[in-house]
Amino acid sequence: MGAEPGADRLSINQASIPAWSIPALAEACAARDIGWIGLWREPVAETGLAAASRSLRDAGVKVSSLCRGGFFPAPDAAARAERLDDNRRAIDEAAALGTNTLVLVVGGVVNHDLEASRAMVADGIAAIVPHARDAGVKLAIEPLHPMFAADRSVVVTLKQAREMAAALPAETVGIAVDVYHVWWDPDVGQEIAALDPERILGFHVNDWIVPLPDMLLGRGMMGDGFIDLRGLRRQIDQAGYDGPIEVEIFNQALRDLPPDEALDRIKARYLETC
Amino acid sequence: MGAEPGADRLSINQASIPAWSIPALAEACAARDIGWIGLWREPVAETGLAAASRSLRDAGVKVSSLCRGGFFPAPDAAARAERLDDNRRAIDEAAALGTNTLVLVVGGVVNHDLEASRAMVADGIAAIVPHARDAGVKLAIEPLHPMFAADRSVVVTLKQAREMAAALPAETVGIAVDVYHVWWDPDVGQEIAALDPERILGFHVNDWIVPLPDMLLGRGMMGDGFIDLRGLRRQIDQAGYDGPIEVEIFNQALRDLPPDEALDRIKARYLETC
Repeated sequence: MGAEPGADRLSINQASIPAWSIPALAEACAARDIGWIGLWREPVAETGLAAASRSLRDAGVKVSSLCRGGFFPAPDAAARAERLDDNRRAIDEAAALGTNTLVLVVGGVVNHDLEASRAMVADGIAAIVPHARDAGVKLAIEPLHPMFAADRSVVVTLKQAREMAAALPAETVGIAVDVYHVWWDPDVGQEIAALDPERILGFHVNDWIVPLPDMLLGRGMMGDGFIDLRGLRRQIDQAGYDGPIEVEIFNQALRDLPPDEALDRIKARYLETC
Repeated sequence: MGAEPGADRLSINQASIPAWSIPALAEACAARDIGWIGLWREPVAETGLAAASRSLRDAGVKVSSLCRGGFFPAPDAAARAERLDDNRRAIDEAAALGTNTLVLVVGGVVNHDLEASRAMVADGIAAIVPHARDAGVKLAIEPLHPMFAADRSVVVTLKQAREMAAALPAETVGIAVDVYHVWWDPDVGQEIAALDPERILGFHVNDWIVPLPDMLLGRGMMGDGFIDLRGLRRQIDQAGYDGPIEVEIFNQALRDLPPDEALDRIKARYLETC
């Protein structure tokens, strides 16, 4: 199997420790030999795109992904066109930050029509492919847990994401796999094995804890829950992935810790469980 | 397509209006030409099995299903054997109540091993098949929403339930389809179409509302949410089902209504949406 992954593959999604500014997070990661961070558009805008990029370059930390594009379904054509414009801006921001991956949370049901909303997603992604290709940015469709089907993502399984991506060019459209969203799937193993390595654009880790403290802010620290993290990580590596492993934990208890302590804990658990 | 279903196919799961005793619910249903009710073991035990059966017979209301058997995974062999004994008692209770359907909520993950827990479920159901067959009771595997995978049901998709049932005799083991648990599935249509009509043992309706008030007590009234109820009901009928349509809404706001008002509202919405 080879060795378990080291800190060089670890990426800290900034939503895991939002108390830090981007420069502070970058420095803290560099000091711990953590190779990557994952960014969100809103805090990037607060820091400023140029300042954020500079601080990352100075610290020698790479950007694993930018969150997020998506939310394609909208009630009418004008609103959908606006969403596409916003996605093109997100692509430009990703390129400016030096990451080749924009994560897509595709959006929920509009007009009470699940199937039509799914078609809007497929059409929306197809519409931004040329802009992404020209910018050198890949679009990572992230299937979300089915409990978000109504309001956040009509794409809810790896199979569905894989099939949606397959209709579009492999050099531009792929999948991000977050264990929280897919661990329950009886087909998760065979679906990971079916992925074209070129299409695997991200691997996100955290854990499913019981009782779930909250649908949005209820993700657990790796090792505290039910997900077979090492098993899934080995499967994704066997499928040909060797990129960053991004820790994305939305959890109030983690946010309440001093940031240095939170980061130390994340790194230790990552090394132990992934 | 034929006419939409009438009150004769409507079943009221007693958890939707728990304020009523079984005799009171049976009378209220009979007064509204509602053909069926769905029961839970605990309130049946409170009323007494014989008294409950008598009140239903007197009212002329049939029992669509008894909830619930299942919870097969357990940390050790002794605990698993105990679960099997409890399932055999549930089968006997279903037979005494005159229903041919025991709903199985199969149980969650034990020993932090999802795959082993799934195997315990398959073994557990197989172990109680002879008792169920002799009692004339069918076992309905109900796939639960993936958000319950850790603690309530390692069976989370129709495909998985269908395949698990297929390994066991069709005259004893089938599926219960609850829209709340399966509506999000990109394969729901093809999976319903793939069901052997003999295996379709129940169809439960309610709705998925946003924001979800609560994972357990957050089901919505039909028509208040995102589920295409008429579409799914037509699909299940086209697959060969013509049995009761059971309204199972766990919702605190509904429980807070006067029971007569709750029942009138359920019947009206059922006629409107199913």
